[in-house]
Amino acid sequence: MAEFTHFNERGESHMVDVTDKSVTNRIAVARGQVFMNEDTVEKIYDAKINKGNVLEVARLAGIMGAKQTHQLIPLCHPLAVSGIELVFYRQAKSILIEATVKVSGQTGVEMEALTAVSIAALTIYDMCKAVDRAMVISNICLVHKAGGASGVFERKDDRCREQ
Amino acid sequence: MAEFTHFNERGESHMVDVTDKSVTNRIAVARGQVFMNEDTVEKIYDAKINKGNVLEVARLAGIMGAKQTHQLIPLCHPLAVSGIELVFYRQAKSILIEATVKVSGQTGVEMEALTAVSIAALTIYDMCKAVDRAMVISNICLVHKAGGASGVFERKDDRCREQ
Amino acid sequence: MAEFTHFNERGESHMVDVTDKSVTNRIAVARGQVFMNEDTVEKIYDAKINKGNVLEVARLAGIMGAKQTHQLIPLCHPLAVSGIELVFYRQAKSILIEATVKVSGQTGVEMEALTAVSIAALTIYDMCKAVDRAMVISNICLVHKAGGASGVFERKDDRCREQ
Amino acid sequence: MAEFTHFNERGESHMVDVTDKSVTNRIAVARGQVFMNEDTVEKIYDAKINKGNVLEVARLAGIMGAKQTHQLIPLCHPLAVSGIELVFYRQAKSILIEATVKVSGQTGVEMEALTAVSIAALTIYDMCKAVDRAMVISNICLVHKAGGASGVFERKDDRCREQ
Amino acid sequence: MAEFTHFNERGESHMVDVTDKSVTNRIAVARGQVFMNEDTVEKIYDAKINKGNVLEVARLAGIMGAKQTHQLIPLCHPLAVSGIELVFYRQAKSILIEATVKVSGQTGVEMEALTAVSIAALTIYDMCKAVDRAMVISNICLVHKAGGASGVFERKDDRCREQ
Amino acid sequence: MAEFTHFNERGESHMVDVTDKSVTNRIAVARGQVFMNEDTVEKIYDAKINKGNVLEVARLAGIMGAKQTHQLIPLCHPLAVSGIELVFYRQAKSILIEATVKVSGQTGVEMEALTAVSIAALTIYDMCKAVDRAMVISNICLVHKAGGASGVFERKDDRCREQ
Repeated sequence: MAEFTHFNERGESHMVDVTDKSVTNRIAVARGQVFMNEDTVEKIYDAKINKGNVLEVARLAGIMGAKQTHQLIPLCHPLAVSGIELVFYRQAKSILIEATVKVSGQTGVEMEALTAVSIAALTIYDMCKAVDRAMVISNICLVHKAGGASGVFERKDDRCREQ
Repeated sequence: MAEFTHFNERGESHMVDVTDKSVTNRIAVARGQVFMNEDTVEKIYDAKINKGNVLEVARLAGIMGAKQTHQLIPLCHPLAVSGIELVFYRQAKSILIEATVKVSGQTGVEMEALTAVSIAALTIYDMCKAVDRAMVISNICLVHKAGGASGVFERKDDRCREQ
Repeated sequence: MAEFTHFNERGESHMVDVTDKSVTNRIAVARGQVFMNEDTVEKIYDAKINKGNVLEVARLAGIMGAKQTHQLIPLCHPLAVSGIELVFYRQAKSILIEATVKVSGQTGVEMEALTAVSIAALTIYDMCKAVDRAMVISNICLVHKAGGASGVFERKDDRCREQ
Repeated sequence: MAEFTHFNERGESHMVDVTDKSVTNRIAVARGQVFMNEDTVEKIYDAKINKGNVLEVARLAGIMGAKQTHQLIPLCHPLAVSGIELVFYRQAKSILIEATVKVSGQTGVEMEALTAVSIAALTIYDMCKAVDRAMVISNICLVHKAGGASGVFERKDDRCREQ
Repeated sequence: MAEFTHFNERGESHMVDVTDKSVTNRIAVARGQVFMNEDTVEKIYDAKINKGNVLEVARLAGIMGAKQTHQLIPLCHPLAVSGIELVFYRQAKSILIEATVKVSGQTGVEMEALTAVSIAALTIYDMCKAVDRAMVISNICLVHKAGGASGVFERKDDRCREQ
Repeated sequence: MAEFTHFNERGESHMVDVTDKSVTNRIAVARGQVFMNEDTVEKIYDAKINKGNVLEVARLAGIMGAKQTHQLIPLCHPLAVSGIELVFYRQAKSILIEATVKVSGQTGVEMEALTAVSIAALTIYDMCKAVDRAMVISNICLVHKAGGASGVFERKDDRCREQ
C-alpha cells in the first residue's frame, strides 16, 4: 500500500534520501486557470501592447517562483532546473496557464511545474485585482510527468477545459 | 472605469506609490481547496497522530510562504505582517484551507493571504503525491478584506463548499 | 572630518543604529547606462512588440532586486519600500536606466535605487548577451535624494548623457 | 542572424532549455570600477587595518551576491558555482574590481561574475557614501569566458584602465 | 500557567497576532561561545591583519543572518531591525560572541540577536574547520532584553565565562 | 601545517575552488542540545499530541534551514543536498538534536548538518521562550563525516550526553 513518503517510520517529516538515485532527464507539465469576468479577460488581451502586458509579468513571476520551489515547499529537494516554459491560453472567462519544467537530476520537477503555475496565477490575480476582486484560481494539477523511476504519468481528464 | 493600477500611464509595470497612505490595521481572509481521493483525505486524518501530520507541515509552509509574498509577486509591497492563522477543514473529497493575515501598514494583505493558501495547498499536494498523483488545487479566492481605503470586501458566493 | 559610518570606533563593521531617528518620507533617484552596439539598441526597440520586450523583463528584475537590497548589501537596513518606478531612455549606443524609490521610514533608499538600476542593467545584459557580448554597464550613480536628516542631494554633472 | 535567445518563437520570455547540454568546466572573469575622490581611495587603503576594511566587506558581498544570481536575474539558470575569487586593485581615482567564477555545469557563469562585480561595487558605494556621495560605478563588463559550446571570449579593449 | 504562545487553543501553530501592540523601542543582547584548541584561537588573532580576518567574516555573516531571522524561524514576525552590533572577545580556548539588536517595532528582537550569534558561530566554525574539526558551539543564550510589554529580562548566571 | 583554506595567499576571503574535485556520495552528522527546565521538557512532550508539536516545527525549520546554508555562511558552496533527517532525543533537562545530511557532490555537507541543528535549536527556543526564557543552546558539533577526500571523521568524546 502506498505511503506518505515524506514521513519516516516514526511519522516524522524528512527529506527523502535520493543520494543513490541516478541522474536522468526529467520533465513535468502542470496546468491551472484563473477565472475572471469576461471583461477582465478582454482587458488583459487588449492592454497587452499599449497598456501593459499582464501575462509577461505573470510569466516571469512563474519562472522565478519555480526556481524558489525548494525554499517554499518544506521537504522538496533543491534542484538546478534546466528549462522553464510558461504558456497562457485565452478562454472566454479564464486564462489557462501551462508550465513545463525540465531538469537533469536525481528527482523530478513536478512541484516546480505546479509552483510555476501557482505563482503565475497569483500574479495575474495581483495585476487585475483592482478591476476584478472576485477572481478564482482553480484546477491546478499535473498533466504530464516523465523521466523518473516511477514511470510516465499522463492525466486522463481535461481539468482545464473552457467552462 | 477601473484600470490596471500596476501599470503607469505609459503601460509600464511599477510598484504603486503608497508613501502617503496612512498606516491602518488591515485584515484579509482567503480560501482554497485541495481535491483528492476520499481515501487520501482519510489517510491524512488517520495519520495525524502516529504517522505524520501532513496538515501541520502545510500550515508552516503557508505561514512561511506568506512572509515571502513580496519576493514572489513582482509588484507587491514588502509588509511586516503582524499575524497569520491557517485553518484546515475536512471535507469528503478535499481539504479546505483558510488563511487569515493581518498587518498594521500602508497597504493590504490580500496577496499574503492568497499566497499562504497557495503554498499550503502545494505542500499538501507534495506530501500526498506518492499516494494520489491526480490531486487538484481549486477555488483559491479572497473571502474577506477590511481596513483599507477601498472599504470592506465580502465574498457572496460560497466557492469552497463541499462538492 | 567625514568618517566611514559603517565601522564603529574599533573599526568593526556594524549596522548603524537608527532606532531613534524619526520616520519621514524619503525619495532617491539613481541612473545608469548599458552601452552596446547601435544594432543592439535597435533590435531591443524593434523587438518590443512582437519578439519580446527586453525592457519589461529588466524593469521587473530591477523592481524585485530593489526589494532584496538589504539581503545583498551587508550593512543596509531592511526597509519596507513604498514605491518603485523604473524608466528606460533610448540613446544611440546605450539604454539609460532611471530608478526612483520611495519609503516612509527611518533611513533612506539610496542603495535601493542604485540596486534597482544595477539589477536592471545586468538583466538587459543577460537578455542581449547572445547578440552582443561586449556590452558595458557604466555611470551608475545617485542623481537625487531627499527626505532625510542629511538634506537634499542633487547631482551636478550629467553622467548619463548621450555619448 | 543572432537572436535574443531568452525569448521563444512567440516572443515570450523563457528559461532556455539546457537539459541536453553536457556538463563541462566553465570559467568567467568580469571587471568593473568604482570612481571616487582621490581622498576616498586613500581613506579606504589607510583604514584597512585599524579603522575597518571596506574591501573585505565588499568582497564577501560580491561572493554572496554571485550565489544569488539566479534569484536576481529572471531567466538565469540556477547553478552550483564551484569557486569565486574577487580581487581589488587600487587606482588613483577608483577601485578596480575583478571577479572570477567557476562551475562544473551545463551553462556558463558570465552573469555570476558580473553580479559579483556589481554587488561588490554597490557595497563599496554603501560603505563610503557618508564621505563621498558622488561616486560612480562604471565599466562593468566581461573580460574572459571559456568552457562552453560558444567557445572562448577574450575582451580586446581595456575598459578598466586607470583614468 | 505559562503556555506555548505559538500554538492556538486547538494546538495548531500560528504567528501570534501583534497587530494591536504599540510600536516601542526594543533591544536584545545574546551571547554564545565557539570552543576550539588554544592554537586555533591564537591563529585567528595572529592572522587578523595579514592572513585573513576570520572574525570580520563572522561578524558580517551574523549581521546578515539576523536580517534573515523571520525567514529561518517559522513563526517569527518580520521586523525592520534598526541596529545590529556584534562583538567578539578572545578567551583562552574559545571566542565569545555578543550580539546586540535593536528595533522600533511591535515585537522584540530576541530571536534576531540569538540568530546573529548562531550564524556568526557557524561561520567561525566554517572558517576554521580545516585546522580544527572538533570545535563546539555552546552557551548560546539571551543575556538582556528590554522595551516590550513583558518587561526587562536580565540573565543572572554567567554562561559564557572563561572555562 | 594546516591553514585557513577560506583565505587565499594574500589573506583575502574566497570560495575555495572545487571545480576539479570528483562527485562522490557524502554524509555528515551533527548534534546539539537545548537546555531548559525539567518542566519545559515535560511540557514539550506532553503537548505533542493535543497542544502542538514543538519538535515537528523545529524539525521543519532545521530541514529548511539546511537548504539555506550557502546563503547564510558566506564562503559555503551551494549544494543540492539529497537527504536530510533530524531526530530529537528527550533528556531530563534538555532536548538533544541530531541532524544527518547527505549529498552527491563535489564538497561536503558538514555546514549543512550544523546549520540544521542550529536552526532547529533556535526554533525550539522560539517556541518555548514564553514559558522558559533562560534556555541555553550548547554542544553543537560534528559527530561524523564521510565521503570526501579528507577521509572519515568520527567524534571521540560524547559532547551531548545527559547532564
